[in-house]
Amino acid sequence: MTESDLTRDFRVGVVGAGMMGADHIKRITSTISGARVTAIVDPDETRVAAALENAPGAIGYSRIEDALEADAVDGVLIATPGFLHEAVLLPSLAAGLPILCEKPLTPDPESSWRILEAEQATGRHLIQVGFMRRFDPEYRQLRELVETEQAGELLMLRCAHRNPAVPESYVQEMLITDSVVHEFDVVPWLAGSPIVSLEVKHARRNRLTPERLKEPILVLMELENGTLVDLEMNVSIQFGYQVTTEAVFDSGIARIGEAHGLQLWHQGRSGLAEHADFTTRFAAAYDNQVQAWVDAARQGTIAGPSAWDGYKVAVACQEGVASLLDGRPRTLDIPDTPEFYR
Amino acid sequence: MTESDLTRDFRVGVVGAGMMGADHIKRITSTISGARVTAIVDPDETRVAAALENAPGAIGYSRIEDALEADAVDGVLIATPGFLHEAVLLPSLAAGLPILCEKPLTPDPESSWRILEAEQATGRHLIQVGFMRRFDPEYRQLRELVETEQAGELLMLRCAHRNPAVPESYVQEMLITDSVVHEFDVVPWLAGSPIVSLEVKHARRNRLTPERLKEPILVLMELENGTLVDLEMNVSIQFGYQVTTEAVFDSGIARIGEAHGLQLWHQGRSGLAEHADFTTRFAAAYDNQVQAWVDAARQGTIAGPSAWDGYKVAVACQEGVASLLDGRPRTLDIPDTPEFYR
Amino acid sequence: MTESDLTRDFRVGVVGAGMMGADHIKRITSTISGARVTAIVDPDETRVAAALENAPGAIGYSRIEDALEADAVDGVLIATPGFLHEAVLLPSLAAGLPILCEKPLTPDPESSWRILEAEQATGRHLIQVGFMRRFDPEYRQLRELVETEQAGELLMLRCAHRNPAVPESYVQEMLITDSVVHEFDVVPWLAGSPIVSLEVKHARRNRLTPERLKEPILVLMELENGTLVDLEMNVSIQFGYQVTTEAVFDSGIARIGEAHGLQLWHQGRSGLAEHADFTTRFAAAYDNQVQAWVDAARQGTIAGPSAWDGYKVAVACQEGVASLLDGRPRTLDIPDTPEFYR
Amino acid sequence: MTESDLTRDFRVGVVGAGMMGADHIKRITSTISGARVTAIVDPDETRVAAALENAPGAIGYSRIEDALEADAVDGVLIATPGFLHEAVLLPSLAAGLPILCEKPLTPDPESSWRILEAEQATGRHLIQVGFMRRFDPEYRQLRELVETEQAGELLMLRCAHRNPAVPESYVQEMLITDSVVHEFDVVPWLAGSPIVSLEVKHARRNRLTPERLKEPILVLMELENGTLVDLEMNVSIQFGYQVTTEAVFDSGIARIGEAHGLQLWHQGRSGLAEHADFTTRFAAAYDNQVQAWVDAARQGTIAGPSAWDGYKVAVACQEGVASLLDGRPRTLDIPDTPEFYR
Repeated sequence: MTESDLTRDFRVGVVGAGMMGADHIKRITSTISGARVTAIVDPDETRVAAALENAPGAIGYSRIEDALEADAVDGVLIATPGFLHEAVLLPSLAAGLPILCEKPLTPDPESSWRILEAEQATGRHLIQVGFMRRFDPEYRQLRELVETEQAGELLMLRCAHRNPAVPESYVQEMLITDSVVHEFDVVPWLAGSPIVSLEVKHARRNRLTPERLKEPILVLMELENGTLVDLEMNVSIQFGYQVTTEAVFDSGIARIGEAHGLQLWHQGRSGLAEHADFTTRFAAAYDNQVQAWVDAARQGTIAGPSAWDGYKVAVACQEGVASLLDGRPRTLDIPDTPEFYR
Repeated sequence: MTESDLTRDFRVGVVGAGMMGADHIKRITSTISGARVTAIVDPDETRVAAALENAPGAIGYSRIEDALEADAVDGVLIATPGFLHEAVLLPSLAAGLPILCEKPLTPDPESSWRILEAEQATGRHLIQVGFMRRFDPEYRQLRELVETEQAGELLMLRCAHRNPAVPESYVQEMLITDSVVHEFDVVPWLAGSPIVSLEVKHARRNRLTPERLKEPILVLMELENGTLVDLEMNVSIQFGYQVTTEAVFDSGIARIGEAHGLQLWHQGRSGLAEHADFTTRFAAAYDNQVQAWVDAARQGTIAGPSAWDGYKVAVACQEGVASLLDGRPRTLDIPDTPEFYR
Repeated sequence: MTESDLTRDFRVGVVGAGMMGADHIKRITSTISGARVTAIVDPDETRVAAALENAPGAIGYSRIEDALEADAVDGVLIATPGFLHEAVLLPSLAAGLPILCEKPLTPDPESSWRILEAEQATGRHLIQVGFMRRFDPEYRQLRELVETEQAGELLMLRCAHRNPAVPESYVQEMLITDSVVHEFDVVPWLAGSPIVSLEVKHARRNRLTPERLKEPILVLMELENGTLVDLEMNVSIQFGYQVTTEAVFDSGIARIGEAHGLQLWHQGRSGLAEHADFTTRFAAAYDNQVQAWVDAARQGTIAGPSAWDGYKVAVACQEGVASLLDGRPRTLDIPDTPEFYR
Repeated sequence: MTESDLTRDFRVGVVGAGMMGADHIKRITSTISGARVTAIVDPDETRVAAALENAPGAIGYSRIEDALEADAVDGVLIATPGFLHEAVLLPSLAAGLPILCEKPLTPDPESSWRILEAEQATGRHLIQVGFMRRFDPEYRQLRELVETEQAGELLMLRCAHRNPAVPESYVQEMLITDSVVHEFDVVPWLAGSPIVSLEVKHARRNRLTPERLKEPILVLMELENGTLVDLEMNVSIQFGYQVTTEAVFDSGIARIGEAHGLQLWHQGRSGLAEHADFTTRFAAAYDNQVQAWVDAARQGTIAGPSAWDGYKVAVACQEGVASLLDGRPRTLDIPDTPEFYR
């Protein structure tokens, strides 16, 4: 897709129409600006049919090769199980298409290496791997804190990844390959230094974990620059889902992942940053509002405060200004709601 | 726009190319799915020219009537100062187009009433007013709490609206018409009951407020169902921007608007809801990730973890699983970064 | 007690052996340094007998006059119901003994005025009134913030006093005389300025409050220096006991009174246990208050609210009850401070 | 002191008139009920003279033996450096007096074992060791949570001990013997299970730590019941003093030790003041500890960590220092609990 194409949407082929694929289809269709799903690829026809309902204008395929041959897509989003990634990555690379590949790239270093070679052969950076924590606002704030050394150099990371429970398909080694895998990406990205060694230790076993599992575990990592990392990995904690990181700096502590934003301990105080103005406080509200209006307007209706709401506020403002000026209480005199607005 | 048109984008005409209009143009172009800006209307040619740079494919107009005549838009977003709203609303209504009108609808009850009559004459609900707080996730949680009566009936609302400072154009009556106006809409919406009377009281004057202002003020409101509301309105608080509401129920208290989510005091404890799973904790991360990829892919590049990042994680997983099984430390053996990925 | 007596304990007579008296007896015996209970005065012999078990070496009396005649005490702590205070205060003053008198000084301005005259006749400051909030560590921190103007001048106080429930003996006017009474003392102390007017407003009635009560209420107060105060008074909130103050300054906000300590993540929420009643919320305040009184009384002085503070609160209560009943604003008519209390 | 003496104060001899001793003298004189300082023992006459000013009625001695011979005390509080403890403990035990001994009991397992034998020879529990965390309200709440299993069984403890800085006398092994030593006592007490092995790991070195130190460190401990503990030990964190514990249970998480009290919104942030050092963080713990000891000693018993607890900590310190120096894991070899201490 060349720059001159920026007035038309980027055509995405989603490979894998399971839960994760369906989620991405919904996202691209309803949330992402400038893109639309034009192909859904899955050998299971029933899943393809269900997915197509949420992607107006898309076409279903059973194999990635067919979608590529039909020139139906500008890019490929891979949402199959990890062991099937290689079979989609190679033809997509051969077709020279940009790819967003859900983590892991592939399940083992050997196959990952083959992918590296295939990408290099194209001479372009085509593959982006779906380690989405790098896009989380709080991880970004924390990384900025590391880079700016506002509280000094990073010394330790103390992480916790807690799931309330896991499905039956979750087996012991997935503690690493499905869960800790995220830290393996984001920890070096945060610290600016690669992992050089690691070690796993077992805590007392949770009695509520399934029989096939032995957890929680503690994963210790050492980074090349000396940063020490300890990660509690926990998949039966019941109370909720929590992914936190406490970063120890020379002269302060920062924590992310609690039910609020980045919290910083520095110079005698702990605290949270306050909003500077409405653009951050109400960013989501503005986005949600306009999206709701666009969606409703396309259906010929509204999805928010009506003109009648606007009228009532005009009355309140008139009386409010009067009371502001003379300090006296005011009664609001609102006509009966017109039939039309009931 | 009929339902059959859902495969093409909704064409928005933005009227008013000042700060608010520019913000909406950026939003529709970069964030909102299924819509694009096709017309920018403003008598100031310089502003139109600047705004057009952020709206590829849009055309500039000096009057709304010209844009309507050219059949350039499916809907109108009004972002002019309030006193100009009526002049845009009436022709847009006459054209039968859906309208998102920034607050206030119009500056006074008389002109608002004229708009109501014009809309009713079209026989359709065309106007949505931009009281965006109704779209804020926390206000929505609070409203749900009121509706479900989880902590009993709503008895009081204790609100605060705090700005660090205001621009020179901000005059005394704007405490009501520009700031408190939001509460006039959202308070009845939260409580499910209209305002029947109000009163403004003055606190000790802030020495840091501009000479032309006398604030903070306290606005008291009584709702038809007996709910009592007190609102602190403050525009020189310096430290940051804060809009909070504390709701008093029969058997509990809820607070929204602090630098975290809805906090509930109920049954002997205070606290915050925890995430149930990654879909809420990392919702923004997933959206941001895919948008970043789409934007980069259209430019022929990536904007996130590369295949090389994916390879390194595959190595860490391999060693991590080994340590999980035998509990022994492991060193990670990563080849030198290929030239291509540096 | 002269300074040379500092090596022996200060002998306290506790008048009133009900719940509050028993609590003070336990405090002086087990927590307070340099004092011990030597007399317990109550007409109810059963209560005296029970109280004596927790005060080794003390003697029981049915009337204060008997304890005074026996020279059994160095100071008097009055913990009877308020309407009985005058009958204990007058003979204790006549005996020239230091007195810690539970709030209120007396129930009305007229009787409070008689006490002022009796104390002035002794020529010494003998009476300290039991407004223990002044001894709470957080109120002290807040007052220091007001005094140092670290965040600028104080402009507003936004208070809440929430009880889970009240006993059967609690009637409507006690909203003012038993509960708001604390704010009548501590608000001027925090702000450094007296109350000049007040007004009571009713919120929607809590369905869980007893039939005889109509609450929550909102009490508005204006201080001489212009500070505006709004207080939510709530006695059926069920979830716990909470007394909070949010102070609005020129350039910042401070809040005291929220729960803290062990934080628990469990069953979908994170949070803190709320206080069940004042005994935990104000435990340190009660201890600090009695220790301060003992230390001061041994030196022949007081270290807390004086009888004059008690008088001013009696006036505020009288006007507060009037406004509670008819909903009309009231001005407080306080005489000039007598020379003796300046 | 027999029960019949409960009407007179318990006479305490404080040994060691340095900073810690002076703090205890002030505590016993002004805060603790039922006790007073009657002897101050220190070879340094200047320090004794200074200390006597805060202890009306007390007498100075240069050796503990002189105070014992003079029958000047009912109990002994030892606040000398640890290496001098044995020389005070042995004659005090021989005199049959109750002893509150600041941690550590003695600096090494061999001398601690000698104290155990001397105490057993008296046939009474006379020694209480000053591990004051057991008296901190939050540690107590956490222990209760472990015992009641309200959130399930305890699986992990994730601790942090952070000092802003340390004095020049603080050397590398004191990371274990002066700081981690507290966790060696309180962790088994919280978890209800002894430490069986430990290991020390180094994080990236803090550039702000003195040249003679290499920290922060991470101390890993395994308890007999399988509970895994990781402790961050940090003595140059600058921002404040913080001692926190996060406990991982089957179905929830609990955290203690964060700051609280007055919350301030100012200059772009909201937050709480951090503790400056242990005197504010553990003020209540020290008071509660000494009061508990006085109350128990008057009844002829102890109410806190015993000499046996002191011995076990001496073993953990010995192995902890060894692991600190060579980085290798260590198993703790604790003899069976003597009959006397069961």
